[in-house]
Amino acid sequence: MGVAQWFDGLMSSRYTAPVVLPCDPACTVVRDGVLDVDDSGRITYCGPAAQAPATSAPVTALTGILLPGLVNTHAHSPMTLLRGMGGDLPLLRWLNEIIWPAEAKLRAEDVRAGMVLGSLEMLSHGVTTSAEMYFHPEEMADAVLATGARAVLGGPIIGLPGIDWHAMVRSTERWIDTDGLRFGPGERIELSFAPHSAYMLPTEALRLTAEAAAARGALVQIHVAEAADEDQEQRAEYGSVPRLLGEVGLLDGRLLAAHAVHLSDEDIQLFARHGVGVAHCPGSNGKLASGIARLADLRAAAVAVGLGTDGPASNDDLDLWEEIQLAALLARLSTKDSTALDAPSALLMATRGGAEALGRDDIGALEPGRWADFVHIETDGFAFATGLDVPDPQLLSNLVWAAGSRRVRDVWVAGEQVLADGESPRVDREKAYAAASESAARIRA
Amino acid sequence: MGVAQWFDGLMSSRYTAPVVLPCDPACTVVRDGVLDVDDSGRITYCGPAAQAPATSAPVTALTGILLPGLVNTHAHSPMTLLRGMGGDLPLLRWLNEIIWPAEAKLRAEDVRAGMVLGSLEMLSHGVTTSAEMYFHPEEMADAVLATGARAVLGGPIIGLPGIDWHAMVRSTERWIDTDGLRFGPGERIELSFAPHSAYMLPTEALRLTAEAAAARGALVQIHVAEAADEDQEQRAEYGSVPRLLGEVGLLDGRLLAAHAVHLSDEDIQLFARHGVGVAHCPGSNGKLASGIARLADLRAAAVAVGLGTDGPASNDDLDLWEEIQLAALLARLSTKDSTALDAPSALLMATRGGAEALGRDDIGALEPGRWADFVHIETDGFAFATGLDVPDPQLLSNLVWAAGSRRVRDVWVAGEQVLADGESPRVDREKAYAAASESAARIRA
Ligand SMILES: [Zn+2]
Ligand SMILES: [Zn+2]
Repeated sequence: MGVAQWFDGLMSSRYTAPVVLPCDPACTVVRDGVLDVDDSGRITYCGPAAQAPATSAPVTALTGILLPGLVNTHAHSPMTLLRGMGGDLPLLRWLNEIIWPAEAKLRAEDVRAGMVLGSLEMLSHGVTTSAEMYFHPEEMADAVLATGARAVLGGPIIGLPGIDWHAMVRSTERWIDTDGLRFGPGERIELSFAPHSAYMLPTEALRLTAEAAAARGALVQIHVAEAADEDQEQRAEYGSVPRLLGEVGLLDGRLLAAHAVHLSDEDIQLFARHGVGVAHCPGSNGKLASGIARLADLRAAAVAVGLGTDGPASNDDLDLWEEIQLAALLARLSTKDSTALDAPSALLMATRGGAEALGRDDIGALEPGRWADFVHIETDGFAFATGLDVPDPQLLSNLVWAAGSRRVRDVWVAGEQVLADGESPRVDREKAYAAASESAARIRA
Repeated sequence: MGVAQWFDGLMSSRYTAPVVLPCDPACTVVRDGVLDVDDSGRITYCGPAAQAPATSAPVTALTGILLPGLVNTHAHSPMTLLRGMGGDLPLLRWLNEIIWPAEAKLRAEDVRAGMVLGSLEMLSHGVTTSAEMYFHPEEMADAVLATGARAVLGGPIIGLPGIDWHAMVRSTERWIDTDGLRFGPGERIELSFAPHSAYMLPTEALRLTAEAAAARGALVQIHVAEAADEDQEQRAEYGSVPRLLGEVGLLDGRLLAAHAVHLSDEDIQLFARHGVGVAHCPGSNGKLASGIARLADLRAAAVAVGLGTDGPASNDDLDLWEEIQLAALLARLSTKDSTALDAPSALLMATRGGAEALGRDDIGALEPGRWADFVHIETDGFAFATGLDVPDPQLLSNLVWAAGSRRVRDVWVAGEQVLADGESPRVDREKAYAAASESAARIRA
């Protein structure tokens, strides 16, 4: 479907549902709710039916819960092709013997196939936006435009012997200067810089990236303090990775720190002061035994924290609802406080908080002016067997703790339906599976 | 469907599948596998098609993965009616203000409705057996016989003022003496004693329970060392709850300790020496901030450990696959070792290990002589998009880390199909939901 055709097809619409969760800061539960979307795919009203403006737009009456599309703040989604490879080998053997040799075989069309698969998987879980760091970002853009999802993309900048990080920075620069920071129908693609980490790059590369990103108002995604034993050199020289990031100018622009597990009090204050967003990845950090991020302290310092799945080779799926539950469980265990992160707060991290961590105020909530990225959850499953007519805290508990991704049925991005009764109206699932399966078999061989 | 009719209906059958997981101690992956079931519902063969005996039995060719039904070693499943009540209130307020007042209103028919719902939910997740502790155990038996699942049931013995624990022990005794320790088609129901905990009962009640259970060869289920601040009196007097359990004779019989979070080295040795089974409940322990059980140490001491969901008011669902993942994540985080519990070991805990923790050698694995309790998982989802033709460790990773309960399609108990393409052939789901919803509304009011 071409861009022009897509715009032709969209018109103002009204959606109604017994329960609407706008994901405002109070996590209000709107009963008998209405969501109005204009012909550009933006929200014009979200609230109670009783206060909704008059409209001549066609009305779609939905029977479950409406909420914003979830925001996955850290992923390497084409790694769907590598899912489960190596089983549960220790980290270094897994990287050296399995992952890196496999990635060396990846061609552009493999990345496209893996990204289509990952994008379909996320949509089927109600995740509409993902922040991605992976090779062949042009293919990723193509894949995301095909499924109709939204993404923030960056090709990784890596400083290994024989790799020209300078050219990698320039290539992102050139792309932004050609296509713009955001493009595609509904501005579905945002371009970003993605230096892998402080320990994989010379400080000069980080400095160049900071300048290039600042000049363009672009987001920088980077892995920070994931494992306790990484960054030793950088810590020795600068005291901490966040300090190093300040030194090279990265804290002055839009910065998204992925993982951010091993932070000092001072690091957290530095992030708070500079408006750095954090992508909290509890599932990946658990599976790889990296540690438990200091979520309660980050939140207390008012750092914007979103949730991330990390790549499906290390988690191993792209279901952000699992991260919602894990974030709450680990926050409670690490503080010995069962009220450390309640269901509504955890849900907000996956929506509004994720948008904030990415420095975006146009997604992550159902509010006038934001893009109409939203999800319809059927409430005919076990999680809601006691009915929707329960107090608000119980309803939110049922959604977060019991339903999760199980009953996601329909998804819209920028007002366009991109999941209908669990299936993609745009991409043939069988063909997508066949392409991914073929790529996976080749790189496994 | 009556018992006689059920036995009439069963005949020898063969099932084939591209992948069969017998859940033997090595977690072997059988390719092109066969499962033979005789007309009593017991397994006669499980292994490669090439070595299968000749048969004239009808053959059902399945397209996905066959594995044993999962064993949930600790649940209070009728609490489906209370799911999410109170949201995320602090524990004591939640119990005092919400749960206990609601439970005081529960009638026998409510427990039945809640247990039918819970049993259907577990079957839909591939859980065929659950160890249950709840009021009105006769109604629970009735519900389980209706859905066709398997359960180990105990009415809780509680020592609160005005409650006659003596009568509670006698009532379980009488039931076993009347109906036998196991009964129902395929011996689906096992009766057990369920003293709530050391801190809720006088030692005299524990002693009487130990005698009554030993005389009948019955299992005793009890909560042990769930929260750090419980059992203070018992610890002061006996040194630890496991020592107290030894003192009253409970370690000499079949004992299942639920939670077992706060154990000393000596406690673990005591459990190992006496063959005590442990129901590890990582999800509940996380949500309530109870702590992380010492799984690696329990396993190193060769204690039989199974997994449990705990009640759906405190977890909040009955999906044991989530506990499989959580057990692995928390074992890795607490030992800082990403190899602490791999996918096959975690899967075995939910099957063979759960049976062992319950002191049962007739369920939890696909082996000749055991009951044919098994699950068929469709492999047409995202988790298996790279194909089944991957190395064994990758396949098991895909199943455990990415698929989980999502594609459970068919379930058999004692050779009888009790879930067919996701639906119960025995119980009308709409009616079950309506009954549960009605009960839930009444106790909420
Ligand atoms: Zn990453
Ligand atoms: Zn319990």
